[in-house]
Amino acid sequence: MEVVPLFLIAIDRQSPLPVYRQICDRIAALVDDRTLRPGDRLPPTRLLARTAGVHRSTVVRAYEELAALGYLDSRCGAYSTVRRRARPPATRAAAAADRDRASLLDWAALATPGGRAALADLSPATVDEGAPPDAIDLSRLTADPGLAPHDELRRCLKSVLARAGGAALDYGDVAGWPPLREVIAARMRVHGIAVSADEVLVTAGAQQAMDLALRLLTGPGDRVAVEAPTYGMAHALLRLHRLAPLEIPLRDDGLDLDALAAALRRRRPKLVYTMPNFHNPTGITTGQAHRERLLALCEKHRVPILEDGFEEEMKYFGQAVLPIKSMDARGVVLYVGTFSKVVFPGLRIGWIAAPRAAIARLAAIQRASCLTGNTLAQAAAARFCAGAPFEVYLRRAHRTYRRRMETLLRALAAEMPPDVTWTRPPGGFTLWLRLPGAAADEARLCARAAREGVLISPGRRFFARRPDTGHARLSITCADETQIHEACRRLGRALRQPGGEFDRGGSPGHPHRRALPESGS
Amino acid sequence: MEVVPLFLIAIDRQSPLPVYRQICDRIAALVDDRTLRPGDRLPPTRLLARTAGVHRSTVVRAYEELAALGYLDSRCGAYSTVRRRARPPATRAAAAADRDRASLLDWAALATPGGRAALADLSPATVDEGAPPDAIDLSRLTADPGLAPHDELRRCLKSVLARAGGAALDYGDVAGWPPLREVIAARMRVHGIAVSADEVLVTAGAQQAMDLALRLLTGPGDRVAVEAPTYGMAHALLRLHRLAPLEIPLRDDGLDLDALAAALRRRRPKLVYTMPNFHNPTGITTGQAHRERLLALCEKHRVPILEDGFEEEMKYFGQAVLPIKSMDARGVVLYVGTFSKVVFPGLRIGWIAAPRAAIARLAAIQRASCLTGNTLAQAAAARFCAGAPFEVYLRRAHRTYRRRMETLLRALAAEMPPDVTWTRPPGGFTLWLRLPGAAADEARLCARAAREGVLISPGRRFFARRPDTGHARLSITCADETQIHEACRRLGRALRQPGGEFDRGGSPGHPHRRALPESGS
Repeated sequence: MEVVPLFLIAIDRQSPLPVYRQICDRIAALVDDRTLRPGDRLPPTRLLARTAGVHRSTVVRAYEELAALGYLDSRCGAYSTVRRRARPPATRAAAAADRDRASLLDWAALATPGGRAALADLSPATVDEGAPPDAIDLSRLTADPGLAPHDELRRCLKSVLARAGGAALDYGDVAGWPPLREVIAARMRVHGIAVSADEVLVTAGAQQAMDLALRLLTGPGDRVAVEAPTYGMAHALLRLHRLAPLEIPLRDDGLDLDALAAALRRRRPKLVYTMPNFHNPTGITTGQAHRERLLALCEKHRVPILEDGFEEEMKYFGQAVLPIKSMDARGVVLYVGTFSKVVFPGLRIGWIAAPRAAIARLAAIQRASCLTGNTLAQAAAARFCAGAPFEVYLRRAHRTYRRRMETLLRALAAEMPPDVTWTRPPGGFTLWLRLPGAAADEARLCARAAREGVLISPGRRFFARRPDTGHARLSITCADETQIHEACRRLGRALRQPGGEFDRGGSPGHPHRRALPESGS
Repeated sequence: MEVVPLFLIAIDRQSPLPVYRQICDRIAALVDDRTLRPGDRLPPTRLLARTAGVHRSTVVRAYEELAALGYLDSRCGAYSTVRRRARPPATRAAAAADRDRASLLDWAALATPGGRAALADLSPATVDEGAPPDAIDLSRLTADPGLAPHDELRRCLKSVLARAGGAALDYGDVAGWPPLREVIAARMRVHGIAVSADEVLVTAGAQQAMDLALRLLTGPGDRVAVEAPTYGMAHALLRLHRLAPLEIPLRDDGLDLDALAAALRRRRPKLVYTMPNFHNPTGITTGQAHRERLLALCEKHRVPILEDGFEEEMKYFGQAVLPIKSMDARGVVLYVGTFSKVVFPGLRIGWIAAPRAAIARLAAIQRASCLTGNTLAQAAAARFCAGAPFEVYLRRAHRTYRRRMETLLRALAAEMPPDVTWTRPPGGFTLWLRLPGAAADEARLCARAAREGVLISPGRRFFARRPDTGHARLSITCADETQIHEACRRLGRALRQPGGEFDRGGSPGHPHRRALPESGS
C-alpha cells in the first residue's frame, strides 16, 4: 500500500476565507513547494475532516476545487492523487521580485516610445520631501472631497438601482447614458452653448475626452498648438501620442494671438488646445474679443479648437464670458467638460460637446477602446445633476471657493515679499505666482516651501520642455481659509529664508515681514 | 425715455426647472431670436415680478444669471440692457441638423485612418431586421443582468460610501483601488496564477486592458497574431490601432500551433492574442499540453502572449485546465481578466496581471489617457468580491449557465437538421454552429432566423476580412432554458424553410422535423 502523507491543516475560524478555501490553499501550497509530489495520495476526505475538525463535505469541496485547479486527479471511489504537470505553475510562495528577476522579456525595450514617455511622466507631481505632517497642500487640483454631498449621491445611487435596476449595471449606450446626455446638454445651454443631447458624448473624465480627440484627429509626429504654460497632463497625453507641442506664449489677456496666427500659417497644427476660463495653471480668463478673434483665426485656417471648459461651473465672482463654443456657428470647436472639478472626481465623468459628425467618430473610437462607460456612475450623476441638490451644492461650492480665493489674494498681499507678483483669477481654483530674478530655481523653492509646511507646484510642470521660469501654481481645492492664510505665511517665510531670494539680511529667527506690500499683478 | 419691451413669461409650476431658470431661459431665447436686441432695456425686476407672479428676488437672480452668461449688462441702480456681442451665440432654437449643415469642417476627412476604421466598425452587431417583438436573443454576450445581485451591490455601495467616504469619490490610485487589487490577486491565485497585488492593474473592463497592452507594445503597421475566428471587438481594436492581424486558424483543439510557429518565425508579430478557455466565439477550450507548447513557442521567440481569461470564472462543468499565465515562470504573459462576463458589466472593471515592469508602464499609459479609473465602482466591486455574497452568486450563476448550456446542447440535437454540427463547450457562454455547403451566406441565414424569432451572430463578424464561412455563434447569456429550447426550434424552422439549405421538400406549413438526429461535433 502506498504511503499517504499526513499533514496538519490549521483552520483559522476568524479568517474571512471560507474553511474549504483555507484547506484548498494549504494543499496547493504543499504541492507548489513540492512537499506533496506528483502521484502522492491525499488522505481520505473522512480522515482529513477528522484531523482538521471540519465536516467531511467541506473537505470534499476543497478536493473538488483542487481538481478543477489542476492540482489533483480525482476518480470516483479512489484516492485523490497529486497530478503530474509538465509545467508546474509558478510557485505562489515566490515573491514578485523573484518573478521580476526570472523575466525573459525586457519590457522597457519592448515598450513603444509613447509608452516609455508615459512612464517618464509618472514622476510624482508634488514636491513634498521633508514636508512636516501638518503641511498644507496648495498643490493638488481636484474638487474638494470635503465638500462632496455624499448623502445626496447615496440617495441617487439607491434610486437609480431601484428604478433602472439591471440597465444601470449592464453595458450602456455607446455615447453615454441617455438621460445624462440630456442633463449635460441642458447644463451646456445654461453656459450659452446650444447643443442637443446627440451632440454630447459622455467620457471617463476630461482626460479621456482629450485622448479621444487626439485619437480622432492626430497621428504620430503631428503638431498641436497649446498655451505655454498649460495643463501638465495635456503634455503627458501629447507625449503618449508622440505629438509635437507648438507652445504659444500665454499673455496676461490669454494666448498670444499673433504668435498663434503665425503658427497656424507656417506650422499647420492639427488642433489648438485652449482653456479660456480660469486657465490651469495661471487662472487667466480671456475676454469676449479675444475669444472671437481666436475662433475667427481657427475658422480661417480650418483647424479645430479643443476648448477645455474644466472649470466652467466655477464662475463664482460672476461676470463670466461665454465659452468659445457658444459662438461656434461653423462647428469647429470640440468642447470638453467634466464633473471632476465640480464634484465627485472618482465617478470619472466628463464629456465632449461637438458637431454630430465628430461625436459619431469619437463614440466609435471610445467603443473600440473600452466598449462603454461606467453606466451606474453615469446614471447616478444624471440623477444628481438634474435635481435641486446639484444647484444647492453648486451654490455652496461657489461660496466656499470664492471665500478661499479672496483669502488667498488677501494673504498673498500681506505675506509675500515685494517683487513677487501673481495673477488675480476671476474664478476657478488656481493662481500663478511669479518669483523674479534669482528665484528661478523652482525645485529648490518648492522644496523649501515643503519644509516650511506648504506644498506648491513648480511652474516647470506646465511647459513641454520644463524650463525654470520662476513660477509656481497655488491651488485652493484642498485647504480651507485658515489653512490658506497659514500657508501664505509659511510661503513668505520660505521665500525670505537666509540664502533665499528675498533674504534682505533679516535675522534667521525673525524673517522680514511687511504689513501691506503692493498686491500682485 | 427709451421703450422698455413688454413680454409675458409663462411660469410652469409643475416643471422640474426652478422658476428663475425658466425666466432666464425665456429671456435668453428672446435675445437669441432677436426679439430683444442689443441695447434694449429689460423691464425693472419689480415690474417683471408682478407680471410673472413671482417674488422679485427670483427675477433678480435670473437677471444675475443672464448677466453672467453674457446676455445682459447690469449696472447697480440702472436698468439692465441687452448686451451687444460681436459674435452672437449659435441660436439655441436651431436644430442639430442645421448646425451640421453649417459645419465648416469635414470631420470624415479630418479623421485619422484609425478613427475612420472605428466608425466603420460601429455597424450594428446583431441582425434583427424583421424580428418579431418576442424574438429570443442568442446573439448578445454579457453577464445576464437578470442574475445580478442588485441588493448585495447596493449594500456594498452603501458600506463603501459610509466607510471610505471621500476617498471612494476622489481620484484614485494610478493602478486601481488597492483593496480591489488585493481581491483580484487572491482570485487569480484561486485560478492557479501566482501574483501579488502589485502585479495587477485595474482597468475599465477587458477592452481597455487590451487597448493599453496594444498602446504599450505596438505601433501602426505592426502585426498581432490572433485566432481565426476571434472576439469581434479585438479586430475593431486592431483596426483602431492600424495593426495587421495575423490570423492563425483555430482547430478543434485550439490554435494551429504549427501555423503559429511559422508565423512567429517569419512574420514577427508583436503579440499573440489568445483565449484558451471557452473561446469566443467557438467555446473551444485548449488542453494542458497545448497551453504548454504555446507558451514554449512564445518564450522561444520572446513574443508576449495576451491571454484573455474573460470567462475564467465560468468553469461550471469542472475539470478546468489552468490558465497559461499559471505556468508563466518567465514573465511573458499579460493576462486580461474582467468582471463584465461574471457580474455587473456596467461597472466596467477588468484587469491585467503581468510582471511589474509591464504593469508600471501600462499604469503610466492609463494615467496619461484617463487619469484614474472609477474609484467608487472599484471600491464597491472589491467589497462585493471579497465576501461570501460573491461565492453565493457565483454558485448560482454556475448552476444557471450549466443548465442553459445543457439545454442548448440537447435542443440542438433535437432540432437541427442533419449535417449541421456544433462545438461542445466545457463551460462559458458561446457555441459555434457550422452550416455545411450552401448555407455559407450567413447574413441571409441570420436574417431568416431573425424573422423566425431568434437572433444569432453571423460567423463573419469574428474574422478580420469577414468572409462567409457558414458559421454562427449562439450565446446563452440572455435567454433562459425555456427560451433556449424555443430558440432552437425556431432556428431549425429557419434552416428548413423552403428555399433554405435544409429544405428536403417537406410542405411549407409543416417543416420537416427529426426526432433524434446525431449530435454535433
